[in-house]
This record gives sequence, structure tokens and C-alpha cells, in this order.
Amino acid sequence: MDIKQYMNEVGVRARKASRAMAKADTAAKNLALSLIATAIRRDAATLRAANEKDLDAARANGLAPAMLDRLSLSDKAIATMAEGLEQIVSLADPIGEISNMKYRPTGIQVGQMRVPLGVIGIIYEARPNVTVDAAGLCIKSGNATILRGGSEAIHCNQALAKLVKEGLAGAGLPADAVQIVETTDRAAVGELITMPQYVDVIVPRGGKGLIERLMRESKVPMIKHLDGICHVYIDDKADLAKAVQVAFNAKCHRYGTCNTMETLLVAADVAEQVLPQLAPLYAGKEVELRCDPAAAKILAAYPHLALASEEDWSTEYLAPILAVKVVAGVDEAIEHINAYSSQHTDAIITEDYSRAMRFLREVDSASVMVNASTRFADGFEYGLGAEIGISNDKLHARGPVGLEGLTSLKYVVFGHGEVRA
Amino acid sequence: MDIKQYMNEVGVRARKASRAMAKADTAAKNLALSLIATAIRRDAATLRAANEKDLDAARANGLAPAMLDRLSLSDKAIATMAEGLEQIVSLADPIGEISNMKYRPTGIQVGQMRVPLGVIGIIYEARPNVTVDAAGLCIKSGNATILRGGSEAIHCNQALAKLVKEGLAGAGLPADAVQIVETTDRAAVGELITMPQYVDVIVPRGGKGLIERLMRESKVPMIKHLDGICHVYIDDKADLAKAVQVAFNAKCHRYGTCNTMETLLVAADVAEQVLPQLAPLYAGKEVELRCDPAAAKILAAYPHLALASEEDWSTEYLAPILAVKVVAGVDEAIEHINAYSSQHTDAIITEDYSRAMRFLREVDSASVMVNASTRFADGFEYGLGAEIGISNDKLHARGPVGLEGLTSLKYVVFGHGEVRA
Repeated sequence: MDIKQYMNEVGVRARKASRAMAKADTAAKNLALSLIATAIRRDAATLRAANEKDLDAARANGLAPAMLDRLSLSDKAIATMAEGLEQIVSLADPIGEISNMKYRPTGIQVGQMRVPLGVIGIIYEARPNVTVDAAGLCIKSGNATILRGGSEAIHCNQALAKLVKEGLAGAGLPADAVQIVETTDRAAVGELITMPQYVDVIVPRGGKGLIERLMRESKVPMIKHLDGICHVYIDDKADLAKAVQVAFNAKCHRYGTCNTMETLLVAADVAEQVLPQLAPLYAGKEVELRCDPAAAKILAAYPHLALASEEDWSTEYLAPILAVKVVAGVDEAIEHINAYSSQHTDAIITEDYSRAMRFLREVDSASVMVNASTRFADGFEYGLGAEIGISNDKLHARGPVGLEGLTSLKYVVFGHGEVRA
Repeated sequence: MDIKQYMNEVGVRARKASRAMAKADTAAKNLALSLIATAIRRDAATLRAANEKDLDAARANGLAPAMLDRLSLSDKAIATMAEGLEQIVSLADPIGEISNMKYRPTGIQVGQMRVPLGVIGIIYEARPNVTVDAAGLCIKSGNATILRGGSEAIHCNQALAKLVKEGLAGAGLPADAVQIVETTDRAAVGELITMPQYVDVIVPRGGKGLIERLMRESKVPMIKHLDGICHVYIDDKADLAKAVQVAFNAKCHRYGTCNTMETLLVAADVAEQVLPQLAPLYAGKEVELRCDPAAAKILAAYPHLALASEEDWSTEYLAPILAVKVVAGVDEAIEHINAYSSQHTDAIITEDYSRAMRFLREVDSASVMVNASTRFADGFEYGLGAEIGISNDKLHARGPVGLEGLTSLKYVVFGHGEVRA
């Protein structure tokens, strides 16, 4: 197989399908999503069989248990995929909405219309559920998509793609609106990210290594997510009961998620009060605390204590480990966060109005919170209804990205024969 | 001079200044702009002297007359720069605006706050007025900026930068919020576009050659403008009086601008009526018409007639030349535009409601118009108050880019101690 030629053909088909998708009406897009959900439920046994084939190969290749777990498609996961599509049906169609329409002194009316981006390339790991989630979001937002999932999931992805195409065709939409890359050759990724003539945006969903490779090589703009080094700062004007529950939840609700707190900052004036209250909670979860000298002094008796190195302030642990630092106050907290945060999500716990407002304005992160757990930084929690990912970028979509992040605003002008004088 | 080290220092200073600019209040930013305007008027003679130095060197180097014209800073141009800054003062400050704030079932309130992008690198040709325009827009939008103007304008740019820094300092803002690159070494551009740690976005303002080089080499996202291959389609349901005036204005109002029409499409059913009406208008301006066979037949007697080649459909003439094609109707027009347009600005002339709506939705360009001249695609005409450029991109800002295009939306969460369940 000539990968370059193959990917070129995929691109040509995607661009063509994107034109049809851009003008598809809401009813047709929703019908396609419902038909896909029905087909997934109907063919659950076939999907599980395809998944078994992938799992057998993965086990034979010695894939790590965590990866096998992500690759595996249970009955429950199949049901969740179908429900996910039906949830996307219930979301408002963002396409065609016109906003800010106003008359100009020349007589023309100018506004902005929300339109699809065009063709979206999605590169992800061996997680079959992403195939359906991503296809669903792209269909609803009127885009065509090229899906490149992890090669370990190829049989399952092919089986899913067949059902997606069946749904599209049943709704009178082009089957090429969702294409999966049919080769596991890694060169296909290299082609996908260097055909800006066919692909308008790349959404990578994967580890830091993948993203860094794409950042070096991509010629297509990306909506990308790097790491989540999230902070909670407990101010000396904090309600300490709120502080304790938020700081515990932000670390211990889940360890492996990008919106989990990795560094706790505590104002010096309350450190001796609040850290001893937090210690038994963290100890109960066997969280290792990597402390600066001031925090280490207060927490001297803590069972899993270590001294923090400079590297700890910029490490995403994704594990029961927490860096802890005592700071003078809100100024030092903001300074530390803007220096070490990955600009994902940072929170202040305070009852002080002015400090809350300063933190919101001055912390340069995608999500900035007052008195709430960083774990809320999520498309569903924010009410987007669905999420294609979380963006660490400042341009275009920032933070959790829903349907709107897959669209663009173009200017529309209604005239009556006006000309420039 | 070690260019790499120098640019690194510029980057560090810009990032630091961007933090101060992000929290600057509207009054301080407006005061800085007013002080700069005053200083420009006060030092008009000094500016003209610096400009003379540039012009002497440029003449000695045999710079083309058109380039000399752009480089030259007349009394009128100086007054216009100062007025431009005062216009930016009168624009609303986009920073800090919170939108879409709503309660979620968990109790948190989620909204989006408009914040500066951070550090904006602007690369432009030898046009001293851009130095002041760009600095003004970046100051008002709370960004720091690094300006790299054409080397021919270095003396004038240095003189202007001094006044900008004086205004910033007078308003209590960091002088480093606006830095011009003090070397004419081209390697400085190479550094500027590959320091994403210090520069959040690059805005190139220049010819296609510059942009294509930057697209190949930049590691920083760009808000970029390529070419303007704009179309007017005259539908068979058009009001022909409107059609004639718009098609004449879109071509002949100015030739060198990106929103000038380069291809005229005419529905077959009205081509024999409308082309003969347009011919004397174009002939009066000595516009060369490059026609497809059908149009050439109708315009056989036209004095500056040529047959169009395939290349003409994708050429930005920026000259009194127009490609003309007869199409069957709106379907062929949309297809031709989506194939050949540079996705800048395209217009339909029609009284047919359904066709107007289809054209608006289906033409995939930054500005899509009904019954208006493409020449309206402009930040001032759209009411943005100012314009840093026109974007051909789909991500982030599309079409004319004003203050809002230099900002980003971050999520803000107001909580009361909420945690994820």
C-alpha cells in the first residue's frame, strides 16, 4: 500500500464529504446519530468479537494491563457509547446560528454565522469508545472527520466504522463523512498532519510524547492538550472547612485525570492550622506529600513525607503524590502558578472578594476557580454536553472543548446593492 | 550581536511585561494611548527627520517607488497615526468581560472571561504607521508586543518606539510592553517565530512570500492572511442595476486591496444582458477582461479582451484585470467558488431568498455577502473600530481581526466549596 497516495485519497473524500455535511440539516444529522446508536446496540455481539480479536493480539504482544483495560469493550461500554450518541442528539445544533447582526452606517447589515471547521483529523490511542464519541461530535457539528485510532484497536474500529457509515447512509449523508484510517502504518499519521489542503484541524488525544511529536511535525493547526499541573491555593482568608474539602477532593477524587491538583499552595498565616487538618485525610489515602521546608516542618509527623525538589513544582504526577508549598500570600501564589502551572486549571480558596477577583483575572490558565475543586474542569461539568478534549492552547478553543470548539465564525453581510464610496 | 541571546532577552522582557499589561486597568491603557498620540504630534519634526534618514538609505539602495511611498511618513500620515490612537482610546476595553455565566446543577457557576493572549509578535514591511497601529491595538487589548518592521524603516521605528515607551511609562505601564526588534538581521525573525515559550501568537503582515516562509518555519500559532481571490456571482434572479454597480465597485474601487473582486461569475440566463452593461464601465477604466469562451463570445467587441486560462481562476491580480466566467446557476457558482476562492470574501447578487440563504451557508469563506460589494470586508466597515489584519484562517479569528481577535476566553468558576461527587 502506498501510504501517501492512500492518505491523499482519504483527504480528497473527506473534503468532498465536508461540503455535504456543512449543509446537512439538523434532522439528518440527528437521524444519523440515532441510527448509529441503534446499530451499535444491535451488533453488540459482533463488536465484542472484533474487540476480542484485538485483545488476543494485544495480549500476545504483551500490552500492559492498563492499556488492555482501555482497549477492552464491555457490554456496559457498548451501551455507554450508544447513550453518548443519543446525548449528542439532544444537544442544540450550533451550525447556522447568526449572532451580533447589526446595521452599519453604510446600510449593510453585518453579523457572524457559526459554521463547521471542515475536516477534523483525530489521532488517539487504542480506545474504541473515542471512535464513536469523536464521530458523533463531528457529525453533529457538520464536520467530516478522519479518525486514526491506536493500531491495537483496528478490528474493533473497523467494525464501529461500518456501523457509523451505515447510519450516515441511512440519513442520506455521505458515508465518507467519517473515515477511519485503514492502515496501522505509522506513516499515515505523518501524512494526516501534513495535508492542510484536506485537513483543517488536528485533535490529538494521547500522551505527551504523541503531542510533542505532532507539535514538531504538524502543518495543520491543532486543538491540543498537554499536561495538567493544577494548583489549589488556600488563602489566609479562606473558610478552612471549604479549603480542606476542596484540597482533599482535588487530589484524591481521581489521580489519573488532567484536572487533578498536583501542587497545594498554603498561605503562611493559616498553614499551621490547615495542613494538620488535611494530613489525616491524605494519610488515609497514602498520599505522598513532597513539601517545601516550611510545610515539611509543620507536617514533620506525616507518614509519607518527602522534601520537594525544584522539579516537583512542574511535575504532573497522575498518582497519589502531592507537592506542598507555603507561600506568603496571594501575590506569591499567583506568581508561583504563572511560573509553574501548565495553564490548565487553578483554584483559590478564599472569602476575600478582592483577592478572588485578582486571582480570576491574573492567573493565566484555561480554567480559574474560586472555592471549587479543580476536578470540575470538564465539558460535562461545565454544561457543554460533550467534550472532544481539553485545550491548553490560547487561540481558538481554550479549556474543555465541546461542539462549539469544532466550529468557526464567518462574517455574513446582508446588503441592498451597497458599494464602497 | 548574538541574535539568539538578544531575542531571548526580548522574549523574557515581553513575557514579564505581559503579566503587568494583563492586569492594567482601562484608564491606564487609555492614558498611555493618549500620551503616545500627544508625543507623536509634539515630535512630528523628529519623526520626519528619522524618516528622511530611512528614505535616503532606501533611495541609495534603489528601493522601488511603491515601497518608497509606503515607507514615507508625511505630516498627514503622522496626524493620522495620532488620530488612530485616539480612536482606539474610544473603543470599549474587551478585557475582563465575563459572558455566559450560569449555574450548574452541582452549584458552581461557570462563565467565560475575556483575557489578553499574552505576547504578540508582529512581522511587517517597511510601513512606519503599522508600528503605531499595532502597538496601540496591543496596548488596548492588554497584550505585550514585539514588533519586527521592515529593516528599511528602522530609524523611524526606533523614533516611534521611543515615544510609545514614553507614553507607557507616563501611564505607569511597563515600557517593555512594546518592544521593537533593534536589529535588522533577518535571523531575528527566525528566532521570534520559534520561541513559543515567550510568544503566544504571530501576526504577519506582508506579502505571500513572507507568509509562506513563516508557515513553513513558525512554531508559534499565527493569525495570518494569505491572498484575496474574491468573487462576485450575478444570479439570474439578480436586480441587474444592483449587479452592475456592485460588480463595478468590487473591481474598480481599488485594485491593490485583498477584498477586490478578481473573478466575476454570471448566470447564463442574464449574461447577455448584464455583461454588455458592465463592458463600458470596465472599458472606461481600461480593465482587461479574461473570459471563458461563453463570456468572450458576448464581449467579443470589448477592447481589452483575453481568453482565460485555468490559472486565471486562482490568480490574485491586484491590478485592473478581471476573470469572467458564465455559469449555469447558483450551484455551479458555489462549486467554482469553493474550488478556487481563497476563502476571503465572496458575494452573490440576487433577489431570490433561498439562493441568498444557500450562498451564505455553503460558501466556505471568511466573509460571505448578499447584494454588497466585496470591498466592505474590512474591520472599519464591519464596525470593529480598528483592524490588525484580515485572517484567512478558520481557527480563532476569521475575517477582519479587531481587538477581540487579540484576546482569548478562559473559563471562570465561582464556587462555594463544591467538590466532585
